Amino acid sequence: MRVRNWLFDLWREVSEAHGFEAYDAPVVEHEELYIRKAGEEITGQIYSFEDKSGRRLALRPEMTPSLARMVLQKGSGLRFPVKWYAVPQCWRYERMTRGRKREHFQWNVDIFGVAGVNAEAELLAVLTSFFRRVGLGPEDVGVKISSRRVLQSVLEDLGVTDEQFAPVCVLVDKLEKMPREQLEADFAALGLAPGVVDRIIETLGIQDLDALASVLGEEHPAVTELRALWSLAEAYGYADWLQLDASIVRGLAYYTGTVFEAFDRGASLRAVCGGGRYDRLLSTFGGRDVPAVGFGFGDVVILELLKDKGRLPVLERGIDDVVTAWRAELHPAAVEVATHLRAAGRRVDLVLDDKKVKAAFKHAARVDAARLVLVAPDEWAKGEVTVKDLRLGQQQTVRLDALS
Amino acid sequence: MRVRNWLFDLWREVSEAHGFEAYDAPVVEHEELYIRKAGEEITGQIYSFEDKSGRRLALRPEMTPSLARMVLQKGSGLRFPVKWYAVPQCWRYERMTRGRKREHFQWNVDIFGVAGVNAEAELLAVLTSFFRRVGLGPEDVGVKISSRRVLQSVLEDLGVTDEQFAPVCVLVDKLEKMPREQLEADFAALGLAPGVVDRIIETLGIQDLDALASVLGEEHPAVTELRALWSLAEAYGYADWLQLDASIVRGLAYYTGTVFEAFDRGASLRAVCGGGRYDRLLSTFGGRDVPAVGFGFGDVVILELLKDKGRLPVLERGIDDVVTAWRAELHPAAVEVATHLRAAGRRVDLVLDDKKVKAAFKHAARVDAARLVLVAPDEWAKGEVTVKDLRLGQQQTVRLDALS
Repeated sequence: MRVRNWLFDLWREVSEAHGFEAYDAPVVEHEELYIRKAGEEITGQIYSFEDKSGRRLALRPEMTPSLARMVLQKGSGLRFPVKWYAVPQCWRYERMTRGRKREHFQWNVDIFGVAGVNAEAELLAVLTSFFRRVGLGPEDVGVKISSRRVLQSVLEDLGVTDEQFAPVCVLVDKLEKMPREQLEADFAALGLAPGVVDRIIETLGIQDLDALASVLGEEHPAVTELRALWSLAEAYGYADWLQLDASIVRGLAYYTGTVFEAFDRGASLRAVCGGGRYDRLLSTFGGRDVPAVGFGFGDVVILELLKDKGRLPVLERGIDDVVTAWRAELHPAAVEVATHLRAAGRRVDLVLDDKKVKAAFKHAARVDAARLVLVAPDEWAKGEVTVKDLRLGQQQTVRLDALS
Repeated sequence: MRVRNWLFDLWREVSEAHGFEAYDAPVVEHEELYIRKAGEEITGQIYSFEDKSGRRLALRPEMTPSLARMVLQKGSGLRFPVKWYAVPQCWRYERMTRGRKREHFQWNVDIFGVAGVNAEAELLAVLTSFFRRVGLGPEDVGVKISSRRVLQSVLEDLGVTDEQFAPVCVLVDKLEKMPREQLEADFAALGLAPGVVDRIIETLGIQDLDALASVLGEEHPAVTELRALWSLAEAYGYADWLQLDASIVRGLAYYTGTVFEAFDRGASLRAVCGGGRYDRLLSTFGGRDVPAVGFGFGDVVILELLKDKGRLPVLERGIDDVVTAWRAELHPAAVEVATHLRAAGRRVDLVLDDKKVKAAFKHAARVDAARLVLVAPDEWAKGEVTVKDLRLGQQQTVRLDALS
């Protein structure tokens, strides 16, 4: 919990340093909020159930649909751009492995109402600032970036329709995990000709902007946007974190433009977080679209990565003083001392059981307290207590009213 | 969210000032963890469901069973006393009214391993410290205290068995909300003679310690414990918050000793939080009992109470600087300025859309920013920006490297 609170506090701090506001949404949502037909992994892993009045409900598997619904409901009451963050708990029914848990927390940072890459660039500033705060640099973590418009352009030329596009992206996201035959069969099931797969794989191999420009043309929106994003990255000072990688499409159906993924540059190449632009999500809920970008950043992988790199902080309990009575009859006096110290802003662990003084010292050492304050009969009769500084090993007798 | 974070941060601070450690538990638990047969309201309001592998699961309606399970699982790895707190979200399927929501958060503070009232007294210190921190005094909030041993003693004399006792307490908790006939019928269904109800009502009328002593005898454990608790309350300095009230039994089956309830002394008399001693919960899960006390404190009623009393703080967004470019081409320069200020520890809202300067000023006023920093072409050519102090209304031109 100390580590978790440390992580969540940092997420909050970094978000707020960038002017983002906290929001939250219900854990339990109507199941229909998550019903999408693109074959995403996430929609098959929902904890869904019926409540006592027969409604189909679900534990949220992700935050973005709730956020989109909230933005729609607030409607014209909102002033765009909206810059919001949250650290929601999410649920996925899946096999638990390293890096994947059924209950996890996910830092979500989103901007609604900005059509251009200024929004993407700001999100990536939030992301890289966080990495810097936990001691990770561009040699530890990279951010792969592409745009769904790259693949979309290539597929349009091959006659792939808009409706086919989202499920194709979901399939592409699984590319590396799937045998070629399975892939061909799945693409064929979507109505794609066999040659299309080769063309997709060829496109996904592009790893720099000039190569992309030579395929799509310098004036193609995906090229101009990505060039603008790189130029902003220089202004922000995080360009050395980024790399173009057309194989990044992300596994969520709703992305429409820029997509990105932060990854561990070490041997594991784990994805640490993912995000992108989803300008058309609101209309799928019957509302008017508002341009939007966001990312989701799970707590599990980052904590493993920090652990592997030895960068998890050692966090003590944070007790300033352990206060104990020489014997049980003096407990009310120890109460007075503890109350006095707490009023002075100290974090005080008052010994509640009838511990021997020696055991209280051991306890104080174990919780890494700065001081042990002992209430003994002779001193207390004079309004005094014994204070032992556990760091310096010094002991002195102090009047209670002089103790702080 | 600002108010919620303010509240949760205070709960955390107050808990930690008293030496309590944070814990958490799963939201989704096995349903059987909550199956108790005492007729409690809570067990009829559980969001329960079957997962994809046919297990009966539930969204936690309360935290104590999870906590007890964790303490059992940790077993001898724990050093008692354990002083833990949490702010879990809990779910109850019930009619939503003022003060009651289906999703809510509940501050939980518990001590395991202390058999005597030192533990109860420490919990009440945490509770009253929190009230003081939000500006509530003993004239606003009272704490009614009793012990289940009071009613237990009286009922033992009348031949009520141990097994009948928990359901009787659950019924007694509903006493004021139920017509007498219904009550008599419910008691009769538990096998209690009609005269018992009168005796119960008579006992519950006791409102001071001397009256209690005259009924139970001065040496009765309930009397000696409550006297000891009052004496500790004097040492802590919160005795004026407390009042003995034998009608307090609380609606949870597992309490065994002291029970208490904080309530709004105003017209509404709402219960703000409740707690007590539950020394025998662990054995109901098949473990060895450890003495335990705890309280649960919901977020809904306290926020209503603070609102009614005009004591909710006015919390701004906390933006230090709004940074904006004179025109879109200067956005990369604004990015540099924002990055510089963020590195200096300022909370910066960078304008991402192509806002007019006038609109940026309005926005800065709305978010209550301290300054607006404007990047304009002529100044920027000299490495300077225009800084307007929005509190003082003063404007000056500053070199970026001198800006902090």
